Amino acid sequence: RTLRIGLIPGDGIGKEVIPAGRRILEALPASLKLKFDFVDLKAGFESFEQTGSALPDATVDVLRNECQGALFGAVSSPTHAVKGYSSPIVALRKRLDLYANVRPVKTVLNAAKPIDMVIVRENTEDLYVKQETTRDTPEGKVAEAIKRISEKASFRIAAMAGDIALRRQKIRESSPSIHSKPLVTITHKSNVLSQTDGLFRTVSKQALSDPKYASVAIEEQIVDSMVYKLFRQPEDYDVIVAPNLYGDILSDGAAALVGSLGLVPSANVGEGFAIGEPCHGSAPDIQGKNIANPIATLRSAALMLEFLEEPEAAAKIYAAVDANLEEGKLLSPDLGGKATTDEVVEDILRRL
Amino acid sequence: RTLRIGLIPGDGIGKEVIPAGRRILEALPASLKLKFDFVDLKAGFESFEQTGSALPDATVDVLRNECQGALFGAVSSPTHAVKGYSSPIVALRKRLDLYANVRPVKTVLNAAKPIDMVIVRENTEDLYVKQETTRDTPEGKVAEAIKRISEKASFRIAAMAGDIALRRQKIRESSPSIHSKPLVTITHKSNVLSQTDGLFRTVSKQALSDPKYASVAIEEQIVDSMVYKLFRQPEDYDVIVAPNLYGDILSDGAAALVGSLGLVPSANVGEGFAIGEPCHGSAPDIQGKNIANPIATLRSAALMLEFLEEPEAAAKIYAAVDANLEEGKLLSPDLGGKATTDEVVEDILRRL
Ligand SMILES: CC(C)[C@H](C(=O)O)[C@@H](O)C(=O)O
Ligand SMILES: CC(C)[C@H](C(=O)O)[C@@H](O)C(=O)O
Repeated sequence: RTLRIGLIPGDGIGKEVIPAGRRILEALPASLKLKFDFVDLKAGFESFEQTGSALPDATVDVLRNECQGALFGAVSSPTHAVKGYSSPIVALRKRLDLYANVRPVKTVLNAAKPIDMVIVRENTEDLYVKQETTRDTPEGKVAEAIKRISEKASFRIAAMAGDIALRRQKIRESSPSIHSKPLVTITHKSNVLSQTDGLFRTVSKQALSDPKYASVAIEEQIVDSMVYKLFRQPEDYDVIVAPNLYGDILSDGAAALVGSLGLVPSANVGEGFAIGEPCHGSAPDIQGKNIANPIATLRSAALMLEFLEEPEAAAKIYAAVDANLEEGKLLSPDLGGKATTDEVVEDILRRL
Repeated sequence: RTLRIGLIPGDGIGKEVIPAGRRILEALPASLKLKFDFVDLKAGFESFEQTGSALPDATVDVLRNECQGALFGAVSSPTHAVKGYSSPIVALRKRLDLYANVRPVKTVLNAAKPIDMVIVRENTEDLYVKQETTRDTPEGKVAEAIKRISEKASFRIAAMAGDIALRRQKIRESSPSIHSKPLVTITHKSNVLSQTDGLFRTVSKQALSDPKYASVAIEEQIVDSMVYKLFRQPEDYDVIVAPNLYGDILSDGAAALVGSLGLVPSANVGEGFAIGEPCHGSAPDIQGKNIANPIATLRSAALMLEFLEEPEAAAKIYAAVDANLEEGKLLSPDLGGKATTDEVVEDILRRL
């Protein structure tokens, strides 16, 4: 099988980590019978400055018509409002209907406080519909934004969370884990937002009441309390499902628990399509120095493969990354090491 | 001076901690020349069940017409949607225009990792305007909520944050602290919400550019990154100002850093009026057991006094609480101790 993969480095360290993602895919053992074909695509602030578009139509068209997956690096947000510029990754998620943003956060097993959770973030609506208006009043400007929660999007994201919980349980049967049974925690703020978050809550419960999830325990947490618990008892959580904005916040919080955003992957997942995307940003402060941690991108490539139904190839990448971290000799500076991006990549390729 | 204070225990452990708040106010030394006069007021789920109203008009009227301040315990949220019930504390904040929710989070000075920050949360708007609608579509229900950000509310909350930064700096002149200079961190998500959070960001910067804040450093953080930093480098933060919902989430996150929500106070502050409110909830699981930690409420009483221009009285309460914690002998179970609520209160009263 040959997979055609779009490569969208974007800005800043995106240009350093996406090539690492390409290298690991190319280095997968031939025995997997998996080939890759790459196409370079533009998006981001540099693209905006050069072409007038942060997300050129050509990028969306090639992804939609030719590719099965993609790797997306990071984009710089301008520090001042720039007319006509808006985040290409948010637009891409919506235009390709990549309705789930899946963010696993996991320590290596020998960690002092092992955690192993995945945040399943709704990826198309909530405040990210970006419908905003501003009006002048005698007391000054008043701006409003719409937070939209739909039954359809809530149902499918909760079902995705249930499926992931089952899949994780399956994998655990053959490898050690801190969890004994699958758990999905529904996060919302329905004590204040009874209609929007209330709908998310009700529909999520309904989706997860399907008999196929009978083995999955279901809990709920108000988002503020979820953040509290995330920091007090992170080891308790398995799969957390949340509307878009809470998922954004929770996944950065969870990343803090494993020591560096440079370790945390994500996948933007739709029907038969997945974009791997490291959770970190474009990090202009370290760009061009060859010290960015490539692990978030390597794990994102693996996560993309999982959702393209190539779990074996994904497992190989995860294992090689874990082996590098467990040995702890060649680490990038964000983890307290001195290795360059290239040295980390090469160490991991050797372990494939 | 005599202050008339409303006591609103609400539900659950609110009934155990609010009496503790009353006791500490009554026990303040006579040399302060401060007297209190208390009035018991109803609110909460029990009030809703008994009177049909979670926030009886009488409660609001007495507070508005007779009181200078109040102590609010906690209220239970029904586990299922109950027609006509909505959170009385959210309503009270808006009806009395208590525009700032001030939440200091501080370890004792001998802590291994000392932190000392205050979260200044806008308290009247954002998604808490609770304007929601639901419509049926061919694809199922779609619910929408309004997030409202105004120039007026953003300006005054940022100015409050600046004032608090200056006041904290003043107190530090005469007592040891981990901070050398005042810092206000503006939190928002303007990379996605360019109009609403963009307005909050611009107006906050404008408010803090007043020459009276010249000694205060100003920074900004995107909310997801703020949560990440909160957990990685909490010692860096002094005053954090945020729109309502982010402030809600950040303050629970910060509470996790000091070990227990049972330690964290808040004040809902308007012009010449303040309601002290522990950050914890009604905790039905431990209600009636006399083991709730009273410290969040005692500190909330002190915080109320600060905003009623009684800093000396406030300082006495803070010092007594810190002394109890520093000794670490009489602690409630949430802190790993075995003391009852009453024992903790009595130990602290002795130290006044
Ligand atoms: C850059 C930003 C628009 C984005 C988001 O909020 O989704 C980022 O924080 C992320 O988590 O992917
Ligand atoms: C109970 C709830 C409505 C409230 C809020 O969201 O403001 C609480 O979380 C708080 O922080 O005071």
